[in-house]
Amino acid sequence: MSRHKIIYDTDPGVDDAMALVFQALHPDIELLGLTSVFGNASIETTTCNARFLAGRFTPGVPVARGAAAPLRRAAPEPLASIHGDNGLGNIAFDTTGLAALDARPAHRFIIDTVRAHPGEVTLLAVGPLTNLALALADDPRIASLVKQLVIMGGAFGTHGVLGNVTPAAEANILGDPEAADSVLGAAWPVTIVGLDVTQPTIMSRDYLASLRDRGGAAGQFLWDVSRHYEAFHWQSAQLQGVYVHDPSAVAYVLAPHLYTTRSGPVRVVTDGIAVGQTIQKPSTMPVLAPDWDSRPACEVCIDVDVPGMLALYERTICGTL
Amino acid sequence: MSRHKIIYDTDPGVDDAMALVFQALHPDIELLGLTSVFGNASIETTTCNARFLAGRFTPGVPVARGAAAPLRRAAPEPLASIHGDNGLGNIAFDTTGLAALDARPAHRFIIDTVRAHPGEVTLLAVGPLTNLALALADDPRIASLVKQLVIMGGAFGTHGVLGNVTPAAEANILGDPEAADSVLGAAWPVTIVGLDVTQPTIMSRDYLASLRDRGGAAGQFLWDVSRHYEAFHWQSAQLQGVYVHDPSAVAYVLAPHLYTTRSGPVRVVTDGIAVGQTIQKPSTMPVLAPDWDSRPACEVCIDVDVPGMLALYERTICGTL
Repeated sequence: MSRHKIIYDTDPGVDDAMALVFQALHPDIELLGLTSVFGNASIETTTCNARFLAGRFTPGVPVARGAAAPLRRAAPEPLASIHGDNGLGNIAFDTTGLAALDARPAHRFIIDTVRAHPGEVTLLAVGPLTNLALALADDPRIASLVKQLVIMGGAFGTHGVLGNVTPAAEANILGDPEAADSVLGAAWPVTIVGLDVTQPTIMSRDYLASLRDRGGAAGQFLWDVSRHYEAFHWQSAQLQGVYVHDPSAVAYVLAPHLYTTRSGPVRVVTDGIAVGQTIQKPSTMPVLAPDWDSRPACEVCIDVDVPGMLALYERTICGTL
Repeated sequence: MSRHKIIYDTDPGVDDAMALVFQALHPDIELLGLTSVFGNASIETTTCNARFLAGRFTPGVPVARGAAAPLRRAAPEPLASIHGDNGLGNIAFDTTGLAALDARPAHRFIIDTVRAHPGEVTLLAVGPLTNLALALADDPRIASLVKQLVIMGGAFGTHGVLGNVTPAAEANILGDPEAADSVLGAAWPVTIVGLDVTQPTIMSRDYLASLRDRGGAAGQFLWDVSRHYEAFHWQSAQLQGVYVHDPSAVAYVLAPHLYTTRSGPVRVVTDGIAVGQTIQKPSTMPVLAPDWDSRPACEVCIDVDVPGMLALYERTICGTL
């Protein structure tokens, strides 16, 4: 099988870092570049973190700096209580080996790279969808030129929650609802990996300790980077472990059979109390719904083989694939 | 145990009729009155149907006519494809034995009856919530004088759907979103019996045939009234049977142990593509949410003992309690 050519659109972020290490160590993935976006922290911080992560784990892979704020809103506050003041759980890291910064803005990097590999690129987007919306606005034809778009974001209620930052909204989608609604309306093949499958997938403290003990330097890094994040989960949800958000989107790319999906167009609410909510019209729903019916179907993940996902991640980190 | 004193706020409607027969035949229920509301059909039709049902199944119980339209919208189209042109599955019925029509509008009947039995009345609302919102506006103190309010309406996604008439909205709540948001913000003890538990509860064709064969005249009526409704379910969802919407709210009153509930304030979306959606902030959710946090908690049904519910209904109809 040919390797998955991925552009990783990311706002590191602790789970972004855990997903980057996953991609770096899996032999079936070829990273073409990282594009940064505001979200878990400011664009300055996420870009610096993306350059650190690429420099350390995927040497030679470029980073392009992306949007500093949503299309039509002010930039949100960084999520320091979750990801630490530096976006990487307040770990100390060496900034001497940062990856090169591409001269182009992220959305141009995306357009050029997709056009250089027509039909081959997987866009893996795990932050607010601003860069993708900007790329689409500049060059709508890229939607038909990507292999697939896999998004970590949103929530559909099938496992009990519609959101994590509000009762109706997940953080990435709320980060730029207008961008998300635009991106989900374009004709690329989209799969959404949302809270329905990422919150049921939990890396326990013991699991993370095992990665530390068996995963070499990468395993030690995953342990270090997740200490603050794990403490947040304990403090907010009495969870002894961490939800597996961004790495789940990587797992979907590598092993879609681990996920059950539901097909149908998805809209994003852009104002009112439900702003940021993702709402799918399942293709089996027998009513007319003009706000949905003109849009292409997306695949929404509604179930996951949790042990299968966790085993895939562990085997990748520990080199036992 | 003392009997449940119920005011049944209803828009008959086939499942409304099935729920009325359930109440009429269960010994633990004392119906104080029916109040009609637009919804499944026009107010003229639902009021006529309520008078027919009360006259036939609960002689002596009065009917008060309620709202013809939502608080701030035009009346919706009757759901003739679901409930038939006459709202009762197009069965022929005799209009000579109609129940008496109370002189008061429904919301005044509700206020007076609640005040006559402080702390004792269960409001059972299975249509748009306009009458309750009007009662609350006229006399806010009734919220603290009812025993409980049990609502059939809404959807929370926990069983895969957020709505049945749109991808985001259930019919009763969409019938008057402003009224619903007002009602769910008042300080009465509220339980919401929504699609999360009513769509998993299905009366099969065989089940309905058994009611017909074993339930005497009531069983025959339930079979007759549900023929058109069953055909709609087959046509729209290839379901050989019917979803059990309104009777589930009665079952909750009689046997709350059959239901698993989740606590937390509920808001209703009143505009945009998600209009009519019900969104709960579960009490376990560790974020601030000003649009929810000032409001009282509601209990939302998220799981049901389906065999237990169906057995309760069957034993009630067949007189084998």
